[in-house]
Amino acid sequence: MGSPRQRLILAIILAVTVGAGAAHYAGAPSVLSFVVSGFALAGLAWVVSDATESVGRRFGPAVTGVLQSSLGNLPELFVVLFALRAGQVVVAETSILGSIFANALLVMGVVILAGVRHSFDGVMRFQRRLPQDTGTLLLLAVFIIVLLGLSVGSADPASGHRQAISNIGAVLLIAVYIIWLLGYLRSDAATESGAEEGSGFTFPVAIGLLAVGGVAAAFVSDWFVSALTPTLNTLHLSEAFAGIVIVAIAGNAVENVTGIVLANKGQSDLAVSVVKNSVSQIALFLYPALVLLSLLFATHLTFVLQPVYIGALGITALALWQITGDGEAYAFEGWGLIALYVIVAVFAYFE
Amino acid sequence: MGSPRQRLILAIILAVTVGAGAAHYAGAPSVLSFVVSGFALAGLAWVVSDATESVGRRFGPAVTGVLQSSLGNLPELFVVLFALRAGQVVVAETSILGSIFANALLVMGVVILAGVRHSFDGVMRFQRRLPQDTGTLLLLAVFIIVLLGLSVGSADPASGHRQAISNIGAVLLIAVYIIWLLGYLRSDAATESGAEEGSGFTFPVAIGLLAVGGVAAAFVSDWFVSALTPTLNTLHLSEAFAGIVIVAIAGNAVENVTGIVLANKGQSDLAVSVVKNSVSQIALFLYPALVLLSLLFATHLTFVLQPVYIGALGITALALWQITGDGEAYAFEGWGLIALYVIVAVFAYFE
Amino acid sequence: MGSPRQRLILAIILAVTVGAGAAHYAGAPSVLSFVVSGFALAGLAWVVSDATESVGRRFGPAVTGVLQSSLGNLPELFVVLFALRAGQVVVAETSILGSIFANALLVMGVVILAGVRHSFDGVMRFQRRLPQDTGTLLLLAVFIIVLLGLSVGSADPASGHRQAISNIGAVLLIAVYIIWLLGYLRSDAATESGAEEGSGFTFPVAIGLLAVGGVAAAFVSDWFVSALTPTLNTLHLSEAFAGIVIVAIAGNAVENVTGIVLANKGQSDLAVSVVKNSVSQIALFLYPALVLLSLLFATHLTFVLQPVYIGALGITALALWQITGDGEAYAFEGWGLIALYVIVAVFAYFE
Repeated sequence: MGSPRQRLILAIILAVTVGAGAAHYAGAPSVLSFVVSGFALAGLAWVVSDATESVGRRFGPAVTGVLQSSLGNLPELFVVLFALRAGQVVVAETSILGSIFANALLVMGVVILAGVRHSFDGVMRFQRRLPQDTGTLLLLAVFIIVLLGLSVGSADPASGHRQAISNIGAVLLIAVYIIWLLGYLRSDAATESGAEEGSGFTFPVAIGLLAVGGVAAAFVSDWFVSALTPTLNTLHLSEAFAGIVIVAIAGNAVENVTGIVLANKGQSDLAVSVVKNSVSQIALFLYPALVLLSLLFATHLTFVLQPVYIGALGITALALWQITGDGEAYAFEGWGLIALYVIVAVFAYFE
Repeated sequence: MGSPRQRLILAIILAVTVGAGAAHYAGAPSVLSFVVSGFALAGLAWVVSDATESVGRRFGPAVTGVLQSSLGNLPELFVVLFALRAGQVVVAETSILGSIFANALLVMGVVILAGVRHSFDGVMRFQRRLPQDTGTLLLLAVFIIVLLGLSVGSADPASGHRQAISNIGAVLLIAVYIIWLLGYLRSDAATESGAEEGSGFTFPVAIGLLAVGGVAAAFVSDWFVSALTPTLNTLHLSEAFAGIVIVAIAGNAVENVTGIVLANKGQSDLAVSVVKNSVSQIALFLYPALVLLSLLFATHLTFVLQPVYIGALGITALALWQITGDGEAYAFEGWGLIALYVIVAVFAYFE
Repeated sequence: MGSPRQRLILAIILAVTVGAGAAHYAGAPSVLSFVVSGFALAGLAWVVSDATESVGRRFGPAVTGVLQSSLGNLPELFVVLFALRAGQVVVAETSILGSIFANALLVMGVVILAGVRHSFDGVMRFQRRLPQDTGTLLLLAVFIIVLLGLSVGSADPASGHRQAISNIGAVLLIAVYIIWLLGYLRSDAATESGAEEGSGFTFPVAIGLLAVGGVAAAFVSDWFVSALTPTLNTLHLSEAFAGIVIVAIAGNAVENVTGIVLANKGQSDLAVSVVKNSVSQIALFLYPALVLLSLLFATHLTFVLQPVYIGALGITALALWQITGDGEAYAFEGWGLIALYVIVAVFAYFE
């Protein structure tokens, strides 16, 4: 069950999480609800991060990364579904995009900085395989999105069938993602994950904490987001900014903290795996699945996006491939990714 | 002259080819002509594939690949010339584009799947050199096509000179292609092509079969395509779909079958060489040559294309480089390329 | 102080430079001023090139390349500042863009041809690190420029804040460039620069020649450019062509000659360093700095560019990464880069 210190921290996090729920259901002022659920999110992120590391000693980085990013992407799924049900298509779209940008640019950038700081020679090193795979997968999603954007932009006959094209594209993306995922998980069996230090939880406890932490993070994210909307109105911020920045950062707190903590401990491959899997899962599985699920609602989601976000997505895919595809990252590359995220946020602020 | 079994197969293919010619010139129903010439094409593809392999034992993969793709691209050349003479500029353009997409996405994807299935560890391996070269060459063609597209899209002064810019671009592309080709063929002298098994034809017979098969494939492709047009009308399909999908697949049957057969036999380098050479030859030689040749006709061909196809071409160049540039390919990458081709076909269907 | 032959050459160059100044200030016919300052520029380029090589024996290629490209970019800085003060925003923009295209495409292409000719096997080899870094840095600049272009093209709300977005982007680009530069210069301490032949100047003389040559090149570039404008009017050439081609080649004569001379001597790493550093310094430091400096003038500079130049910049960044990112270059790649420059020049000619 871990050390006494770990048990104390878990108790505090449990208390804060319960407090966030109470603030939400009791109708407390949104600012209070916002702050408490924010702390709860960060605490749950620590739980998931710590438990993931214990599990990672049993499996390789592949299984752990997929597990982790799946748990970490649950909040986004719920946020977008709630937004679509309420007919808020701009919030839904920008939340998905924002999750991609936050993971691929902001979190990846901070992970690189943490990894570089931990390295002995200013270079973070990791396996090239996963970044290359993520690059391939992202290019597939970018292909559909760019082609639809050009079709709609030039108002050609195909642009009248944007929903049908989006549906076919969604099925294709999910199919390729599942084929990739099966191969990726199978490859992990071969790698030997050197279980070095034995500081953490036992395997069953870790699995239990991962499950509980992931589900709780989903709930808390929801409370956090519903407390954000009134705050947004008070601060006169646009829906685009809320989706690209606030929901994106809040909804990805788990990947954020997990990735950075792992990189700080020198576990480069696991850190990269968490972030990369999150990005490709959102772009190749979550987004397409939401396109198909939205057919059940009155408001439909397609792959048609605003030109600025299409361009940002395309160059993000290229920059991520360029920077991480060679299995080495330098500090300036981490800062560069963060700068790209700031630029996207600036555009969203002015939209 | 090969084994008795090989001689029997050759006789059957000869008979079917003669039958396709008879159906064409006797004015048989287009469906009959279509089916017979389709079988003849597949048979000739087998001949060229088999003969290429025999020749490949004498030369390296470079010379064989160029030889093979040159023979394989003859049908496209004739189809586009006939279309331009008839003033059908949409069919001409989409046939060229379709040949690039069919080779770079569909055939390359299937070749990767065949190569992966033949490998012992689920990874198809080949030399990085040719994919890198093809990536460079395709970026040159994409450069001209994207700049012209942006110029025409923004209606700037240069867009009024699209024909002159296309002509200059065509000369530059052909010049760079020839410089590349000379260096590529010279490099082949150095590689030792280990002539392992001696199953095939003798060298002179193989060369003869290649020549006869290539020329016959050109004729049969023509009969096949002319039988397609009435079929298209019956099925209510657009010209764009005919060019991007039907002409593209029919016109590239030779590369298609050859590449897949070679990959199935584990000759990864030769398979990749056939497909890659075909792609760069179409983009850097056939298309520019047709732009210049079209000056002799009333209908001129330029590098100005529809926005959707420009985007598809640009990202195809990037995806091909990303996937094959590292000399390794996985099954999901083959499926990914095939998915991209399906997406292009879906757009063409709705145009 | 070098050999007697070197001293004689230096004296001749000094005389030509003084002559160019005399022609400028005495109001000589512009054609005469143009020719004399052209010769002076080429001579000064030789001085800087020779002195750089001597310094390069003391430091590694990193420090030398940065030093060299900084000196070489002084002319562009002055030209653009003078143009902005005179309100000529087209000349200012196209001069910056032209400097990027001239260095990244024309000079890099010629350097590759020189490097290939000097190599024993037709392949120019150099370290992958700097080209990869330059690729990353260029993608950052392209990100801002493409997003602004898409924003302005679709007239979305953010496009109304193009100046604010440009200013923020400029600060971010300069910050990332400085972080990169500090890491890059630090890394140089580790490399051992084998001081092989001792043909050149002593260290203090070389430093002095570099300083004097760089400053003189700035002055002579100015005289050269001011003599160009009347010549342009006589020849009926557009401002875009003047910026993209004439100012770009004149203003980069130093990098041009230095890079080619170094490549000819087989110093591939130093040659690549000079060109690459020049490109990233213009895109990530000079251009952003001029955006911020232009706030002092009545005419402001932003990152909003014509669509054709945005596309050209984006694909130039990709092509440069694709061709040089693997640390090997072939002759056809050099010709390919030169062909791209010709295409950009053709567009500029027709604008």
